[in-house]
Amino acid sequence: MAEADFGQRLARTRAAIAQAGLDGLLITSQYNRRYLTGFTAHDGDITESSGWVLVTPNTFGLVAGTFQLSGVEDEIVPSGVQVLSTDKAAPWSVVAEAIKADGAKRLGFEKDWISYDRYSRLHRELGTDAELIPADDMVQMVRAVKDATEIATMRRAADVADQAFEQLLTEIKVGMTEREIATLLEQHMIELGASGTSFPTIVACGPGGAQPHAVPTDRPVRPGEPLLIDFGCRVDGYCSDTTRTFCIGEPDPKLTELYAIVREAQDAGFKALADGVRKGREVDMAARKVIEDAGYGEQYFHSLGHGIGLAIHELPVTATLRVQTPEADAELAKREQLEPNSVISNEPGIYIPGWGGVRLEDMVLVTADGYEIMTVRNPEHVRSIAG
Amino acid sequence: MAEADFGQRLARTRAAIAQAGLDGLLITSQYNRRYLTGFTAHDGDITESSGWVLVTPNTFGLVAGTFQLSGVEDEIVPSGVQVLSTDKAAPWSVVAEAIKADGAKRLGFEKDWISYDRYSRLHRELGTDAELIPADDMVQMVRAVKDATEIATMRRAADVADQAFEQLLTEIKVGMTEREIATLLEQHMIELGASGTSFPTIVACGPGGAQPHAVPTDRPVRPGEPLLIDFGCRVDGYCSDTTRTFCIGEPDPKLTELYAIVREAQDAGFKALADGVRKGREVDMAARKVIEDAGYGEQYFHSLGHGIGLAIHELPVTATLRVQTPEADAELAKREQLEPNSVISNEPGIYIPGWGGVRLEDMVLVTADGYEIMTVRNPEHVRSIAG
Repeated sequence: MAEADFGQRLARTRAAIAQAGLDGLLITSQYNRRYLTGFTAHDGDITESSGWVLVTPNTFGLVAGTFQLSGVEDEIVPSGVQVLSTDKAAPWSVVAEAIKADGAKRLGFEKDWISYDRYSRLHRELGTDAELIPADDMVQMVRAVKDATEIATMRRAADVADQAFEQLLTEIKVGMTEREIATLLEQHMIELGASGTSFPTIVACGPGGAQPHAVPTDRPVRPGEPLLIDFGCRVDGYCSDTTRTFCIGEPDPKLTELYAIVREAQDAGFKALADGVRKGREVDMAARKVIEDAGYGEQYFHSLGHGIGLAIHELPVTATLRVQTPEADAELAKREQLEPNSVISNEPGIYIPGWGGVRLEDMVLVTADGYEIMTVRNPEHVRSIAG
Repeated sequence: MAEADFGQRLARTRAAIAQAGLDGLLITSQYNRRYLTGFTAHDGDITESSGWVLVTPNTFGLVAGTFQLSGVEDEIVPSGVQVLSTDKAAPWSVVAEAIKADGAKRLGFEKDWISYDRYSRLHRELGTDAELIPADDMVQMVRAVKDATEIATMRRAADVADQAFEQLLTEIKVGMTEREIATLLEQHMIELGASGTSFPTIVACGPGGAQPHAVPTDRPVRPGEPLLIDFGCRVDGYCSDTTRTFCIGEPDPKLTELYAIVREAQDAGFKALADGVRKGREVDMAARKVIEDAGYGEQYFHSLGHGIGLAIHELPVTATLRVQTPEADAELAKREQLEPNSVISNEPGIYIPGWGGVRLEDMVLVTADGYEIMTVRNPEHVRSIAG
């Protein structure tokens, strides 16, 4: 594996901080932490953090303690980050002290990635020494444009997922349950080199597929009905994300009908990218129009896609506004820019309560003059397996 | 499965809200949401929520939309919760409108479970109509005391984990990798009825075990060295949590020595519970003293345990203060009370960089006059398997 260029990542982050008129940034997103420091620790709930990162022109510090770092001290060496230890003081106190020593006056913080409680403790500790400024997704913007190492890693993640799925197809039989299928697929991804899943695997047969985020159940799969599998793995921290809809034996005519519409919608999204459309909402609308024109607009109630990287959902945004306000519009405008070397999903779907769902999702690398599909693309016609 | 008593849960929550002098509570924790409404949706990152819950004397609402509820509308029927739809407005606007209609003036919110950004949007929407009051863990306190249905479910989760582990022991061989072992164990838990893991499975052989939250690698297991496995499953939403340390063949003498100390520390924790100690920090200190007296205090840098339930880490707290302040002391005092029918872990450990770790963890039900171990307890002497 090629080395990550931590120096460049830090430099780009510092440039973004300066550009925003800030003296520093407190980073509380686990993905930004990993991106800048190489520290692979995983955070669970919002109440649990394995460390924060403080960046100013003079400081590059990981706010963490022995519990987090014991045994993995080597991970952060290549990044050159300094440990600001929380062994003897709470993280907000450690940050406040570092900021005072540093002399930073305007400290940005990641407003979406810190709890109100953590924010208010930090605010109190800082007192009048420094001002806390809610910051936009500065490091996320940096991360949205992948470097060559990241793209190579994401290709591997997409490959692992594709191979695992092909293996799964040879094993699925009528009567297997959603949970059994999910377990098999996850097992294959891990055997092929993934560290785990990038999100809870969705296997939904028949009516279960009407729920976009269905949880696998003990329902057995039956011939002809839609079998929707949305799955992803993580390779060196980077996510893959793919959705396939197919069936065992002869497809239900409704499946054939809906598959064709969703496939055409996905095509329209790709065509927009090929035509140079670089605003996420416009790509979304190009695909959405196909489904609306076919009369299924109400049955497609999510966005076309999302950025993919260290996080399963990240920038850029590929969505239209559900609630139109000038503020929401301005926010989206900052987040929907499809820069070359960003990676997004293209995943339209149609969901029919009581019957099921059809969703087709592939991973896409946006290039200077078009796009490149990173996964093996969903086939033109609904795939039918022997089972 | 017995039905959850949603009526009682809501009544206890409303009583806690009134007791705190509030007119209502906005619930943003996914565990509290599931506890009160039965809605099983899973939230990923802090930026992603499948819905909030609003409770006032007159309102019991689930703030969510078609995307979240499509196909799973039935889940929330038994709880009687009303949907406050976000299909046409942002969640903060929906909450603000409901609060205005309701006439509540003092709205509590879960300060640890909402991002600064969501808080500030809500704050702005509410304007002068209602005051937002940071609230303590009100529903968490209710959840800390389990009812009979919850305890029965948690016994099933503990059983699944125990059985899966016993099956694993018959399969582990010298040369298997940490990742292979983790995958096998997870597979067994799912075959036995778990919906998944309750946290990322830790399998650490030899030096890897020096990191309390080690991520499984491709390192193969060798005879004699400590093999530490910390694992849990989820059954009907409830978590199990167990740690075993054992070895293949003849144990390294260091392993025998450290195992005896950790086992004695765990014993001291149990004895404190049997003696009627009901403050988490005192149970922690009883166990900690054994490890400190043996000269390994510096190599044991985490708390003795934590509450377990719908969340893998919840109330009550079983820890001593790392940073002593009057404020931290007062906070802990509210959170460490070990009420009858609370469930905690007892998991002391010793971690030696370059060598590995020993941790023994069992799940414990606190009873009126003592305790009951829910898992098959870690054996008195280090277990050696054939491998």
